[in-house]
Amino acid sequence: MTDTSQPISRFPVADPADLPGDLAERYADVQERSGFLPNVFGALAWRPAEARAFFTMHDALMDKDTPGLSTGERELIVVATSAANSCAYCVVAHGAIARIRMRDPLLADLVAVDWRKAPLDDRQHAILDVAVRLSTDPAAVTPADLDRLRAHGLTEDDVWDVGAITAFFALSNRLAHFAAIPPNPEFHLLGRLPR
Amino acid sequence: MTDTSQPISRFPVADPADLPGDLAERYADVQERSGFLPNVFGALAWRPAEARAFFTMHDALMDKDTPGLSTGERELIVVATSAANSCAYCVVAHGAIARIRMRDPLLADLVAVDWRKAPLDDRQHAILDVAVRLSTDPAAVTPADLDRLRAHGLTEDDVWDVGAITAFFALSNRLAHFAAIPPNPEFHLLGRLPR
Amino acid sequence: MTDTSQPISRFPVADPADLPGDLAERYADVQERSGFLPNVFGALAWRPAEARAFFTMHDALMDKDTPGLSTGERELIVVATSAANSCAYCVVAHGAIARIRMRDPLLADLVAVDWRKAPLDDRQHAILDVAVRLSTDPAAVTPADLDRLRAHGLTEDDVWDVGAITAFFALSNRLAHFAAIPPNPEFHLLGRLPR
Amino acid sequence: MTDTSQPISRFPVADPADLPGDLAERYADVQERSGFLPNVFGALAWRPAEARAFFTMHDALMDKDTPGLSTGERELIVVATSAANSCAYCVVAHGAIARIRMRDPLLADLVAVDWRKAPLDDRQHAILDVAVRLSTDPAAVTPADLDRLRAHGLTEDDVWDVGAITAFFALSNRLAHFAAIPPNPEFHLLGRLPR
Amino acid sequence: MTDTSQPISRFPVADPADLPGDLAERYADVQERSGFLPNVFGALAWRPAEARAFFTMHDALMDKDTPGLSTGERELIVVATSAANSCAYCVVAHGAIARIRMRDPLLADLVAVDWRKAPLDDRQHAILDVAVRLSTDPAAVTPADLDRLRAHGLTEDDVWDVGAITAFFALSNRLAHFAAIPPNPEFHLLGRLPR
Amino acid sequence: MTDTSQPISRFPVADPADLPGDLAERYADVQERSGFLPNVFGALAWRPAEARAFFTMHDALMDKDTPGLSTGERELIVVATSAANSCAYCVVAHGAIARIRMRDPLLADLVAVDWRKAPLDDRQHAILDVAVRLSTDPAAVTPADLDRLRAHGLTEDDVWDVGAITAFFALSNRLAHFAAIPPNPEFHLLGRLPR
Repeated sequence: MTDTSQPISRFPVADPADLPGDLAERYADVQERSGFLPNVFGALAWRPAEARAFFTMHDALMDKDTPGLSTGERELIVVATSAANSCAYCVVAHGAIARIRMRDPLLADLVAVDWRKAPLDDRQHAILDVAVRLSTDPAAVTPADLDRLRAHGLTEDDVWDVGAITAFFALSNRLAHFAAIPPNPEFHLLGRLPR
Repeated sequence: MTDTSQPISRFPVADPADLPGDLAERYADVQERSGFLPNVFGALAWRPAEARAFFTMHDALMDKDTPGLSTGERELIVVATSAANSCAYCVVAHGAIARIRMRDPLLADLVAVDWRKAPLDDRQHAILDVAVRLSTDPAAVTPADLDRLRAHGLTEDDVWDVGAITAFFALSNRLAHFAAIPPNPEFHLLGRLPR
Repeated sequence: MTDTSQPISRFPVADPADLPGDLAERYADVQERSGFLPNVFGALAWRPAEARAFFTMHDALMDKDTPGLSTGERELIVVATSAANSCAYCVVAHGAIARIRMRDPLLADLVAVDWRKAPLDDRQHAILDVAVRLSTDPAAVTPADLDRLRAHGLTEDDVWDVGAITAFFALSNRLAHFAAIPPNPEFHLLGRLPR
Repeated sequence: MTDTSQPISRFPVADPADLPGDLAERYADVQERSGFLPNVFGALAWRPAEARAFFTMHDALMDKDTPGLSTGERELIVVATSAANSCAYCVVAHGAIARIRMRDPLLADLVAVDWRKAPLDDRQHAILDVAVRLSTDPAAVTPADLDRLRAHGLTEDDVWDVGAITAFFALSNRLAHFAAIPPNPEFHLLGRLPR
Repeated sequence: MTDTSQPISRFPVADPADLPGDLAERYADVQERSGFLPNVFGALAWRPAEARAFFTMHDALMDKDTPGLSTGERELIVVATSAANSCAYCVVAHGAIARIRMRDPLLADLVAVDWRKAPLDDRQHAILDVAVRLSTDPAAVTPADLDRLRAHGLTEDDVWDVGAITAFFALSNRLAHFAAIPPNPEFHLLGRLPR
Repeated sequence: MTDTSQPISRFPVADPADLPGDLAERYADVQERSGFLPNVFGALAWRPAEARAFFTMHDALMDKDTPGLSTGERELIVVATSAANSCAYCVVAHGAIARIRMRDPLLADLVAVDWRKAPLDDRQHAILDVAVRLSTDPAAVTPADLDRLRAHGLTEDDVWDVGAITAFFALSNRLAHFAAIPPNPEFHLLGRLPR
């Protein structure tokens, strides 16, 4: 059996109880909604200023639902680009959220291994194509890539979000690798069973 | 919801009922044991001679349990090297078998994304290190790699099996990509829940 | 002559005058200190929440001067990793800041092209080695990499900062590529002449 | 002079005389037709079940001559993809067979180094393009690649064979690397001189 | 401050006074025109025959000004391809010459980091595209690449020069890396200030 | 049969009879010694100044026989690095010369496909290791690489030659790719048969 008692970071882990008020509230909220505290929260607690900026930027990008880029599709960007970076925390945690937000128990697993053959529509395929290119070879993204997203109906805000989500998880993946943050065991099963 | 009615191959799919006797028996057997026919069986049915050789070689390598290389560890080699090749069929199908054979609902997911940080012991880590190198940069494997496996207690047969399993799934991953064989939906959940 | 009238972003550019108060103040401050508004400020203005988080995280990581990681060395991390990502904005802008903070008109140019042969001491070399690996192959960073930094006298906070600065500019480089933000012409000459 | 007494495998080498009857016959047959026993036969002899499956699959794919994919062209797929994998055994051995089957003493050498500039017709060029992509970046093969082969007159069986030959030698190259099987000296000169 | 007293080569450095007459004259000439002896001259002095051939080939390719390929554009080829090879000597030295010959203090810095987004016209962009491909993946250059240059008005001689300059600096970059030749400090500031 | 009437260059081919006297003599000499004019001579004839420098540098590096680096070993450097660049002209032509100079009909073929497993002694293996690294990843060569060569008995001149030969063929490979120079058919068989 996988040992689930391994540390959640290579760095000191602060007690969430010692967090400044606004962060303490945010941590309590996510703990209550999820039933557990995702490890990235625990690992960032010793750096309150960065944690605050990190979760603010995360929420500004991920908690939006637009016709051009749904909340579930935002999670698929995270899954595909984090897989390209071999980031287990992000693939497993956001794979779970993608399953829930897309109400699809299978798609995130397929996107994680080979987004190119995953059963996506053309708009979704173009989104992941641009996102993965930006993640792995950022200098290769061209104006034509952005125009292709616009042609699929993404607004300027949606197109920016494709890039900004990818960029944010380029940061997130590297923090998770550097600190060796493991995914919480709970994430593996979330969203796989009918409710 | 993921459309599970997509075709199982880009090539003609033969009716298993038309298979030669020995293969028909093998197909019926796997269908009965699994409760469904894994798509790689369906996709290979139109080529009985290759199918027979394929499954014979598979079983000769995978259905062995030795102190140096357990059946579950053989599946982890498949998961790690197939992930390096972005093969959704093999990662999802053999991830399921790995969960069952290791009696561990989490480890295969972690190996699939980042085997280097997965909670493995030193012997398992060395096995996957050599296997992934053989898969992705075969000319870079050295005699020292084989000696490292021997130092961890693998027999000559076990060491060969590390290489041969990796080699066999280099074939298998490419067939699955070329024919675009999707994993059966059943694989995603197998081995995740306590029995 | 290089046309310096090219747009500063592929996305809408907001008038800084319309920014919320705290951001307006920050923008006015950087404009006054620099004598010009760096284009990344202009390009982010249409997204105030992200801009606020972005500059907060930036300052938390970059405006610290510790015995293990000086402000100038933090800029060298930016130059080396941004060069690995071919990000002209970050290499040119942070090359200028590195020249000023290191009081060295040459080193940033050398780090930008080939950090491995740049005239660095062993501690600086180890820092850039780990940072560039995290930037380009994040799964390859090992606990030994972090221990090497500790052996050079970096505190836990310093080691984290090496990773977090690298991670933050993995984000920043990708935003700059996606929006095609050019460096302000002023940056090219800053710090090259004795004052 | 190259020392031709080096071992033919890093693993135990069985005496072909001890092989089961059907394999003994196959080995005797190839020895008689070639005038020597190709080292891959020797190296696989200690694993009769795998050897049987290996040579069965090999013959099913390589000993076919169709208008869309001649026996010589099948050998060129082996040469090009084995060169991409730096497999000396397969490049030298199958280069010899390609020279004989194509009745061309030069082409295999050119395909081995740079198939893209080798003097091939458009159909042959398309075949090697798809085969090398499947060998080196299998997730990048698209339905359009298969359609391109069909447009050049390959049947469904021929297209499958392009993929299956490539996949089989992905296995074969890795076994030859792992066991360090050298090409028999005889292969170097075969097919170079007019008969 | 960068230590500018580091050696100019990992190999013996000959006294230019001991050079054969024709080379001594050439060295004196470049020293007089530049105000300093570029380090590549110093590093090559111990090998007069190679030095003579090296500088002869250099001048034959670089000191030509044609409508299809100006002297400044030739320097940009050097900057872009040398940056792809991480060669600090060539990027810094030829960046300076490019600034002077293009009468542009900014462009070389931008080409050095990301030629794809540098403010170039279509002809210049095509030239660098082909040059960088030849430098980094020479087998991938196709007849269509050469035709594209011809369509932009380059003569046969100009097209050859694009390839030959790229090839010559593939040599030059590797010599500079192997001998660890640092750029002279003077190069960093040349061409940055209005005269 | 391979069509041996394909053009020897994508650029104009000058008549050797029109060459300046010193070059005409050199061309006549190589034609007489070889029995044919190697295509690189023909392809360079339209550019006499470059041709003169090219062949001068070639001979300065290749026609030396030292205890630390024999003429045959110099050819093996060409074969190994040209194979890494997929240059058919250089691999086939210099493979022939290597066979003759090493009096070994097999070794060049093995070095061309996988120098790492070729039957070389430790000194030869170290030479090719450094040469191939300089060819494919020049910034990665370290002082320790040069020291390793010195420890195997190479003089300063020999070590430089390892680097300079590699650098020269980095140029040569790119010219041959750019101009699409095919190897003369005669090279394929040279040195394969006992004299």
